[in-house]
Amino acid sequence: MKFQRLGEPGSEKPALLGDDGQVYDLSGVTSDIDGAFLADGGVERVRAAHVAGELPLLEGAQELRTGAPVARPGKVVCIGLNYRDHAEETGAAIPPRPVVFMKDPGTVVGPYDTVLVPRDSTRTDWEVELGVVIGSKARYLESPEEALACIAGYAVSHDVSEREFQLDFSPQWDLGKSCETFNPLGPWLVTADEIADPQDLRLRLNVNGVKRQDGHTGDMIFHVAEIVAYLSRYMVLEPGDVINTGTPAGVALGLPGNPYLRAGDTVELSIDGLGSQRQTFAQA
Amino acid sequence: MKFQRLGEPGSEKPALLGDDGQVYDLSGVTSDIDGAFLADGGVERVRAAHVAGELPLLEGAQELRTGAPVARPGKVVCIGLNYRDHAEETGAAIPPRPVVFMKDPGTVVGPYDTVLVPRDSTRTDWEVELGVVIGSKARYLESPEEALACIAGYAVSHDVSEREFQLDFSPQWDLGKSCETFNPLGPWLVTADEIADPQDLRLRLNVNGVKRQDGHTGDMIFHVAEIVAYLSRYMVLEPGDVINTGTPAGVALGLPGNPYLRAGDTVELSIDGLGSQRQTFAQA
Repeated sequence: MKFQRLGEPGSEKPALLGDDGQVYDLSGVTSDIDGAFLADGGVERVRAAHVAGELPLLEGAQELRTGAPVARPGKVVCIGLNYRDHAEETGAAIPPRPVVFMKDPGTVVGPYDTVLVPRDSTRTDWEVELGVVIGSKARYLESPEEALACIAGYAVSHDVSEREFQLDFSPQWDLGKSCETFNPLGPWLVTADEIADPQDLRLRLNVNGVKRQDGHTGDMIFHVAEIVAYLSRYMVLEPGDVINTGTPAGVALGLPGNPYLRAGDTVELSIDGLGSQRQTFAQA
Repeated sequence: MKFQRLGEPGSEKPALLGDDGQVYDLSGVTSDIDGAFLADGGVERVRAAHVAGELPLLEGAQELRTGAPVARPGKVVCIGLNYRDHAEETGAAIPPRPVVFMKDPGTVVGPYDTVLVPRDSTRTDWEVELGVVIGSKARYLESPEEALACIAGYAVSHDVSEREFQLDFSPQWDLGKSCETFNPLGPWLVTADEIADPQDLRLRLNVNGVKRQDGHTGDMIFHVAEIVAYLSRYMVLEPGDVINTGTPAGVALGLPGNPYLRAGDTVELSIDGLGSQRQTFAQA
């Protein structure tokens, strides 16, 4: 199933995009698509209601803004340098363990929302990533199978980054990852049962119509199940948390001439089966 | 004023510790001490109700667990190496800009709760810190005065850290800062008007009765107002967010023999005017 949240920021309605292309209103089943919904069997309740034909259509869905497909996460955990070609383009060594950092969860916005180039930024960069949404509490998992069972689903995630703030201001990256609007998410939360193999997805990103990233999740150094199991040994993963699993090569930091983003630029990104995003950048 | 949250995890009641030593029930004024309460004038509503003698006593307050004095923060931002003597003891250079990293906000627990030594940890360490609680949205602040006006108050914060996870597993620190129960906060949120000068507070920490840290916030490299103004230029600070402002010298990492924490150890910490914490450590 494909979950959506439609409406203005802070008042999004929960919705289901059916296989028939129709948008169904989930307001009668849940108040939101959030950690509590995912943790207490909400996905299966929606499935049952949909199969029974009990979900009404969401009137006027086409006119509504698309929000992030999960309500504000408790945390956004990121894996750095998780594609061999991206590590190489940034001049970094292949990491022996996952490189773990965090973004401010308040950076999560909708997939078509305006993204702001921070004031005094000269090095705002793009990163298409496979986003993992946690569905049940994960703590000291012992196997990749247990890890996969904790995943509610997947979404396109844009890990926007400011390279000067990230790399030059201190050795800790979070500052350059946490600027306002820096994590477009969605359009859909696609439930895990619809993604046969999270390591068999192609990721693409264009800037102003020019192809910049064209990668494949099979090239991850640490696979999704390994990442979730690894993180669970050091922190508690909660329903609704988001994990950004790293970006393939082709970011401005690694390209000749470093074509960083400016106000007016448009970025389009997509992942097989997870839909596509499109953001126009503006000055903060 | 001194705000508290009393009761079992997830069902804490909002309370006020009066200057008379009595604990007053705030349930009639607010459902919780959280970002929404701080942002919409809750502090002044409580003050008015208290002056008018309208707040009932909280019956049985002495028997209740003390929770963190603010509900789960949207984010916990930390400043590393912010005391000259601590930077020196860890062998780090004095940073030219604030070193910014994050903890999982789910790590926040009450000031007397059990703290867990993670599985496979051999280097769990303590850090007493002045915690700043944000009271109003802060974005691109232009002066230290504006920054101080955005602060709701202060609390004792224990930035528990696992040094192997933090320093050896990758160059990014968040992993070793985000383990379960790693951020005891409280006992009180003391409103900013009660702290004449946040740079004139003594911080102390004992382990099993032995003095380990005895610092002073006047020795911070970057002062509270500078930190808040600096962060606001790179991220949006929201009401209820917590900033841990760094720790003075005396952590296990910097002591001869590195006396890291083990299950059964007891840590007591305090800051002038903000009360004291006491945790016994247990194995996760």
